[in-house]
Amino acid sequence: MSTVRLVDENTTDPRVRAVFDDIKKTKDIDWIPAIWRALATHPEHLELCWSRLKAIMKPGKIDALTKEIIALAVSVTNGCDYCINSHTAAVQKLGLDTEGLNEVLAVVGLFNQMNRLADAYQIEPDILPKT
Amino acid sequence: MSTVRLVDENTTDPRVRAVFDDIKKTKDIDWIPAIWRALATHPEHLELCWSRLKAIMKPGKIDALTKEIIALAVSVTNGCDYCINSHTAAVQKLGLDTEGLNEVLAVVGLFNQMNRLADAYQIEPDILPKT
Amino acid sequence: MSTVRLVDENTTDPRVRAVFDDIKKTKDIDWIPAIWRALATHPEHLELCWSRLKAIMKPGKIDALTKEIIALAVSVTNGCDYCINSHTAAVQKLGLDTEGLNEVLAVVGLFNQMNRLADAYQIEPDILPKT
Amino acid sequence: MSTVRLVDENTTDPRVRAVFDDIKKTKDIDWIPAIWRALATHPEHLELCWSRLKAIMKPGKIDALTKEIIALAVSVTNGCDYCINSHTAAVQKLGLDTEGLNEVLAVVGLFNQMNRLADAYQIEPDILPKT
Amino acid sequence: MSTVRLVDENTTDPRVRAVFDDIKKTKDIDWIPAIWRALATHPEHLELCWSRLKAIMKPGKIDALTKEIIALAVSVTNGCDYCINSHTAAVQKLGLDTEGLNEVLAVVGLFNQMNRLADAYQIEPDILPKT
Amino acid sequence: MSTVRLVDENTTDPRVRAVFDDIKKTKDIDWIPAIWRALATHPEHLELCWSRLKAIMKPGKIDALTKEIIALAVSVTNGCDYCINSHTAAVQKLGLDTEGLNEVLAVVGLFNQMNRLADAYQIEPDILPKT
Repeated sequence: MSTVRLVDENTTDPRVRAVFDDIKKTKDIDWIPAIWRALATHPEHLELCWSRLKAIMKPGKIDALTKEIIALAVSVTNGCDYCINSHTAAVQKLGLDTEGLNEVLAVVGLFNQMNRLADAYQIEPDILPKT
Repeated sequence: MSTVRLVDENTTDPRVRAVFDDIKKTKDIDWIPAIWRALATHPEHLELCWSRLKAIMKPGKIDALTKEIIALAVSVTNGCDYCINSHTAAVQKLGLDTEGLNEVLAVVGLFNQMNRLADAYQIEPDILPKT
Repeated sequence: MSTVRLVDENTTDPRVRAVFDDIKKTKDIDWIPAIWRALATHPEHLELCWSRLKAIMKPGKIDALTKEIIALAVSVTNGCDYCINSHTAAVQKLGLDTEGLNEVLAVVGLFNQMNRLADAYQIEPDILPKT
Repeated sequence: MSTVRLVDENTTDPRVRAVFDDIKKTKDIDWIPAIWRALATHPEHLELCWSRLKAIMKPGKIDALTKEIIALAVSVTNGCDYCINSHTAAVQKLGLDTEGLNEVLAVVGLFNQMNRLADAYQIEPDILPKT
Repeated sequence: MSTVRLVDENTTDPRVRAVFDDIKKTKDIDWIPAIWRALATHPEHLELCWSRLKAIMKPGKIDALTKEIIALAVSVTNGCDYCINSHTAAVQKLGLDTEGLNEVLAVVGLFNQMNRLADAYQIEPDILPKT
Repeated sequence: MSTVRLVDENTTDPRVRAVFDDIKKTKDIDWIPAIWRALATHPEHLELCWSRLKAIMKPGKIDALTKEIIALAVSVTNGCDYCINSHTAAVQKLGLDTEGLNEVLAVVGLFNQMNRLADAYQIEPDILPKT
């Protein structure tokens, strides 16, 4: 059970309403994910989080699917259930099939292992040869 | 200082040598990164790690650059210095410029924040509308 | 489901009973939180954990509310559901309202992001100017 | 060695310069911490990070010292060296003495232990009695 | 709810079937744990994970129970519910009683605390006296 | 550089001196590891940490080497450099050779991977068949 009372999707608070409307339009959905309804208990923080997420997630040098794949890789590494569910759905909506998803997760698993082995052996970063 | 004595690149151990030669050929480099020289103190584990990494990192549904970007996202989230250095160099070698790298890191930073906010509010995964 | 059988609140084990009574008195509650009932399966460890928690959490230079806020910040960063629920209730009992709670969580979220960006760029600690 | 070339404090880029000037003024320092010089390689991200940090860290229901203490607790839990150094200096600058710092760290250590014990025993969140 | 459809235990896919049969035989069980049914959605990854786990977990210098204890310590430190349940059951099946389990968890809790205190004080590794 | 001034090994503070003497005797060393010299800046916390570590690390159902192996597994999973160095030295002092150390680290690496895969697929804990 969430630790705060989620703000209703149909809230009449104009500041929250403006963000909720932009979320629906930007994500092309007709409902509000629970994370935004929780953040809406603090409208200023809601605005900061949403405006920043919108700016960072818009396609640039890195396309939208790759950005969602990064979000999934981070969420899995942090073990965040809500975010794993949300970003798994997002990569699938953007066209990644089960085979592609499994490849992503295999890479995530692999480097969680390799990171710890590198730490375990206390090796110094390689001095890379000049190219 | 590493906690084990790194195996010399020119070792005469045939089992280790075979892996080292394959690493050089596959990665198109003429030296052996320290992580493999540490793992070589346990040849069976070296073989397992290398054969698995080689299988998982070969391009499939997900291309080589995206796989390295995932490796970097995981390494940053785990705070592994050796791996951050290594995978930053790898994505650059595969053509990602500073602007692209900065975009990747912005996404990694963003979801380390969002993951913890989702945990903090103890929200349940959204029941996604059927499409 | 917990991995051990929780010890009953009304146990007749005198060693456990003494700790349970002190927990009720110190926290001014009439029930025993599940974590202590789990730890009670190993009475020596229960005593060590409780006596230490009691010593560390008593107000000193840092007041009781700030100590609970730190406990919440750590629990969120580690993603521990039981502890997030417990320490959210504790800060509220000590008088923090929803606005204050949201401010705390905003700071926790922010530095989970900034920590990873600092790691990502592999920057050395600043040499602080002498004051 | 940082993975990007840090932007010079005296850069002539007007967008970066505006943020650098605001950092100096807000923090009352005459130099730029390395994290901001790294983020400045991506001016849009620099602006987002700084404007958000400034908004979240201004005193509100939670005072400035408590916010820095939270930042330190998060940084220690994540093991981020740069941030631990930076926020230790910040809490000291705001008046926390060695005794207070040690109390903070004792609480941080304690709940890193308790979090893992709660996870280990897989206990469900307590149903808190209504008050 | 799992993010992929778990492969049926009685699948007719020969590649998956061979691994499932080997899992049952090696672990001396007549059912397939869910993690392997999830990994089976990507048969090549299933084979890599299982063959590697089998090789690493076979008794060597370190006996089977100690290896499972290590698996539990890692799983608790990462807060992975599925794995904590699975490895708690495994150490019990290998003969560890509740007293032994509690000792293991006490050590795990202790060093999650000590790790963070060592990070917090930013102490350099000791130069160990030659023996 | 440590964030506090380490207490001198030859301090005349009787409370700290008593702990330092007990550390030397218990560990059979003639110097004080830096972590204890840092904790000594807060004598009450030093006493709590040392008395608890001594109680938990004494051999019981679990022998001394296995307890140190657990400490190493936790430290690697948390990426704590000071602790990895310290516990690697400790397991070697207790007789674990390089082959045994490599086996331990292989298990630690493996479950850092498996933990994240279990999280990634969001699988529920297995309902274990009654035995």
